[in-house]
Amino acid sequence: MKYLITGHSGFVGKYLIRHILRMEPDAEIAGLDLVPAGQKPAQLQEFQIDLLETEKLNRIVAAFAPDYIVHLASFSSVAYSWRRPLESFRNNTNIFLNLLEAIHKNALPCRLLSIGSSEEYGAVSAAELPLTENLKPRPLSPYAVARVAQENMSWVYSKGFGLDIVCTRSFNHIGCGQDDRFVVSSLARRFAEFKAGKCPEIIVGDTGIVRDFLDVRDVVRAYYLLLKSAAGSGEIFNICSGRQTSIQDIIEIFKEITATAPPLTVDPDLLRPVENRIVTGSNRKLYELTGWQPEIKLEDSLRDIAQWWEKHLSYQ
Amino acid sequence: MKYLITGHSGFVGKYLIRHILRMEPDAEIAGLDLVPAGQKPAQLQEFQIDLLETEKLNRIVAAFAPDYIVHLASFSSVAYSWRRPLESFRNNTNIFLNLLEAIHKNALPCRLLSIGSSEEYGAVSAAELPLTENLKPRPLSPYAVARVAQENMSWVYSKGFGLDIVCTRSFNHIGCGQDDRFVVSSLARRFAEFKAGKCPEIIVGDTGIVRDFLDVRDVVRAYYLLLKSAAGSGEIFNICSGRQTSIQDIIEIFKEITATAPPLTVDPDLLRPVENRIVTGSNRKLYELTGWQPEIKLEDSLRDIAQWWEKHLSYQ
Repeated sequence: MKYLITGHSGFVGKYLIRHILRMEPDAEIAGLDLVPAGQKPAQLQEFQIDLLETEKLNRIVAAFAPDYIVHLASFSSVAYSWRRPLESFRNNTNIFLNLLEAIHKNALPCRLLSIGSSEEYGAVSAAELPLTENLKPRPLSPYAVARVAQENMSWVYSKGFGLDIVCTRSFNHIGCGQDDRFVVSSLARRFAEFKAGKCPEIIVGDTGIVRDFLDVRDVVRAYYLLLKSAAGSGEIFNICSGRQTSIQDIIEIFKEITATAPPLTVDPDLLRPVENRIVTGSNRKLYELTGWQPEIKLEDSLRDIAQWWEKHLSYQ
Repeated sequence: MKYLITGHSGFVGKYLIRHILRMEPDAEIAGLDLVPAGQKPAQLQEFQIDLLETEKLNRIVAAFAPDYIVHLASFSSVAYSWRRPLESFRNNTNIFLNLLEAIHKNALPCRLLSIGSSEEYGAVSAAELPLTENLKPRPLSPYAVARVAQENMSWVYSKGFGLDIVCTRSFNHIGCGQDDRFVVSSLARRFAEFKAGKCPEIIVGDTGIVRDFLDVRDVVRAYYLLLKSAAGSGEIFNICSGRQTSIQDIIEIFKEITATAPPLTVDPDLLRPVENRIVTGSNRKLYELTGWQPEIKLEDSLRDIAQWWEKHLSYQ
């Protein structure tokens, strides 16, 4: 089977390629990204492209004729979207439209997995937890607005042009190799630095915040199952663990794993008012369709991440 | 007071300028459009601009420093949005983001009226009629997706950056000078042509379709009231008559007004499956805030439009 992955050089892309090749060693993969991936399996053909380049994208998609497309490419920073809303919008919604048009124009009979975000839900009340897919999004950042537009556009292309599109609302990912602007990766790095004597304390924000963290390996397994599933076009699936984990919980586990107890200092600047103190999703819909369940325990994810940072720091 | 109007050369723009100058003869108006308006009152300063030109737009907005902005500019054809989704999106959402950024960057303390569409509602059930603003949009065309993104982005800029933005969901407009790709204008033209012996019959689609038609003069009066109202930032208002009128009703009134009875031929090609046979809105929220009510009777609107076409045809 032929897989086209946008944003394949990113954190999730690398894991997705690994998973596809584990399931189908003779799969053909086209990876489209601004930059090449570090490691390159033989089955991966890479294309350096800005997905805003309509014609170039069209040519690549037509020539490769994928059976499956996973659209991972995204400017996924909420903070960035506040600083550069137009750019964030263009690099989310407009690139997605380019991709839809490439599929539509070439009448490709492929399934597209459109990756969305739990950010789409916006402000939620305690009574709405765990979040289910039938909740209507109330986006609260330019990034979230772009993601909702992507989901709405998926529905329109699915109903209006008959494209086969499955949408996700993906919650917080964690895993080795994730950028340390994400909280778990950042904490793991600080713990590794503290253990190596490189920092005297760990600075934190509001550790009472509760989120739904899922190991990236479980994420890509869910994506693969959705590609192969009987999901109807236009359907939306939460990708989440269903667990409620506070930042404090994560810190306690890291203490145990690393056998250290760094002093924690609260930085008032990091205590930003957040819209939602608790976010957690229901993965029931995905489970009922595909049987998918998270397989990796939080402790195991965090141990891998802690070790990754210890090893990674020693290379620096 | 200073008014900046995007898309001022269009159908609604001309009426809006007239209404503002009737209410405030010494108002200053900046009109931004791709093309100049035909007639130009002394109080109107025109700027030829593609609103995708970020820097140029920014300079004009900063220099003029309006008290009020009415954003009428839009690629408002649903049909066109199906043929050129990306272009439709760019010329709706991206131009709106450019405008928001110009206001935000220059910290202008102005009120922005963001014009949306009843198309945002998408498919609605009979039980949901008349449509009220608290219904969550379920957009069904690329155009409608762009409009919903505009509304969502208004909310984000209102809450995130403190901009003062009031949103409308405007239903079907009618009036003299409207393009004849809109149904009422098209029917009026055909009646005038029949009366002038230029066509033997009138070709129609499904005349059972029911819509909510509002005279453009009532529309611009509502827009003006909203600019001056105590509406909270981010609030949404239907702009509609609250009346249910079928295409057949319109035809019957035109027969009476023009004292003709042209044969009607149904073109099966025009009998497209439509998502909603009946669309009608509630204007209660606008009424309760501003006291606005439609003032022009449907018969009077249609008489003016019929006469306009009779006169207009004789010029051709």
